[in-house]
Amino acid sequence: MAFTVESLIWSGTVLRVLDQRVLPLSEVWIDCGSAAEVADAIHSMAVRGAPAIGIAAAYGVALDALAGRDRALAAERLARSRPTAVNLHWALKRMAAMAEAGASPERLLAEARAIHEEDREQNRRIGELGARLLPDSAVVITHCNTGSLATGGHGTALGIIRSAHVQGKIREVFACETRPWLQGARLTAWELMREGIPARLIADSAAAHLMRSTRIDAVIVGADRIAANGDTANKIGTYALAVAARAHGVKFIVAAPSGTFDLNCADGSRIPIEERPGTELTEFRGQAIAPPGIEAWNPVFDITPAAWIDALVCERGVAQPPNVETVLQMLDGSFSAGS
Amino acid sequence: MAFTVESLIWSGTVLRVLDQRVLPLSEVWIDCGSAAEVADAIHSMAVRGAPAIGIAAAYGVALDALAGRDRALAAERLARSRPTAVNLHWALKRMAAMAEAGASPERLLAEARAIHEEDREQNRRIGELGARLLPDSAVVITHCNTGSLATGGHGTALGIIRSAHVQGKIREVFACETRPWLQGARLTAWELMREGIPARLIADSAAAHLMRSTRIDAVIVGADRIAANGDTANKIGTYALAVAARAHGVKFIVAAPSGTFDLNCADGSRIPIEERPGTELTEFRGQAIAPPGIEAWNPVFDITPAAWIDALVCERGVAQPPNVETVLQMLDGSFSAGS
Repeated sequence: MAFTVESLIWSGTVLRVLDQRVLPLSEVWIDCGSAAEVADAIHSMAVRGAPAIGIAAAYGVALDALAGRDRALAAERLARSRPTAVNLHWALKRMAAMAEAGASPERLLAEARAIHEEDREQNRRIGELGARLLPDSAVVITHCNTGSLATGGHGTALGIIRSAHVQGKIREVFACETRPWLQGARLTAWELMREGIPARLIADSAAAHLMRSTRIDAVIVGADRIAANGDTANKIGTYALAVAARAHGVKFIVAAPSGTFDLNCADGSRIPIEERPGTELTEFRGQAIAPPGIEAWNPVFDITPAAWIDALVCERGVAQPPNVETVLQMLDGSFSAGS
Repeated sequence: MAFTVESLIWSGTVLRVLDQRVLPLSEVWIDCGSAAEVADAIHSMAVRGAPAIGIAAAYGVALDALAGRDRALAAERLARSRPTAVNLHWALKRMAAMAEAGASPERLLAEARAIHEEDREQNRRIGELGARLLPDSAVVITHCNTGSLATGGHGTALGIIRSAHVQGKIREVFACETRPWLQGARLTAWELMREGIPARLIADSAAAHLMRSTRIDAVIVGADRIAANGDTANKIGTYALAVAARAHGVKFIVAAPSGTFDLNCADGSRIPIEERPGTELTEFRGQAIAPPGIEAWNPVFDITPAAWIDALVCERGVAQPPNVETVLQMLDGSFSAGS
């Protein structure tokens, strides 16, 4: 199946990464030929989105193996590149297990490609399962970018919107601009326009007012890490949307592949929250916005407790409502969608 | 009493307006010599903040009267400059009543100066009354800019923070950056730094996460118009903060001079909400952020129902909780602070 948008392409010799820092104004591809270059691309957010980070990291391990570079060093560099996304660690663990079992560099590359292809398949399944949760003529809000750019293709939360749109079920999407990095304004808006999905951009702070002003059927977001009890780490602002959604009776849906679940985390309090430099708030493209010297607090993720989430969707099913039992049943595949 | 920051200065012949579009990077003053120039300054947001708009408009009427220009035309131009702020209409009505009573141009100027000075006095009183609502060592969140820049001096919500700081009661202020216009990042951060009040800037969408992460004593905001029942129109994002504050047991305080109350509005549904161009979201300083052609929904105010507000503070007292009765009692001056 073709995708209208792709952000990670294996060229045969290098991993080509669509630089998400300069989208949508420029489409610039970065060729990564080593784990170190992939780690730089992840750290600098040229590649972003929890599933995309995991896939890129797997290719990074394969690239160093193919070049005969030290495997442990590659894994360490990659693991340090972003702390919150668990997909990164999941992918590195999977590659390490294969390497320790004596896999050849070519086999490691095949594994990275398999992780990439599996992610696309999982997203299509997430899209199908999630679309069932939406009514006809749905008006939805989404946050950050969870589309083809953030994943191997199709997307998670945006994958649900894509699948529902193909089924004719989407009336309109409101995309939160997603400060400070503007993933919504820059990336989600770009993907929605490419797909021809009716969409409007809003300030993050306008979402609660929107829910009060008009009928919104669902807020649909992705996840960077989900604890065993369903507590979800996702882009800063997700929790504020969950609080507003509950206050307005709007369904709050989290979509992520099963690799996003971290059963070693009992709950959200164990998930490390990445804080990035305050300059992401005080400057824009190198120009000062705020007065010099002002301090900023810039956590780029937040935790939404499971109690505020109506449904967790992964490729194996739907946990609705999410809790320790429904999450485990869903991951075992024994908890069917919508049940 | 001297103010560390002023945004409106009567020079003797013109109204000097500190251009809030270019702060904090440049301090540029615009000389307004007519009502039309004042209306332009208001419409273009060189001057902003509901009380400051009212004061500037009063000077605009006086300027045209002094120059012998048509009074009705001046009032009409000014009235159209921003639809949501009621202070504008309140000030114009007060000037019109005086003109209709046969006041000389000099008397009209004196009235504009009186409106300006009264606003400062009112803000000092709001500051005193509001500071009583805060505990010692208070950690507060504020939104938009409600300081000396937005008023005749001292400020409303920021006036409470200033007064409480002078009393040694403020541990820290978190200033929401306030998209799309970044009044928090550009203006509030600048005022807080000038006053030496400990402050950190946050993304608007981080406020709910902040309330969940640490003890926040109060959210303090201003208002552009308050209906008879206490429903409050204020900067977009105010309502989201109120919803999050209630979910976390954080006190939600609205501060505004009595001129902000519109008793002709029974409730918030009657307040017109200004929508500004989508380019405020899709562009930054003339550079595109979002893909060309994306639609945006850019309401720049929202309505917070009285039920979500813990206390309304004006110079005449505190309505706590706000409703039709407590608002009327407060405006009559018969409802004492904190009762």
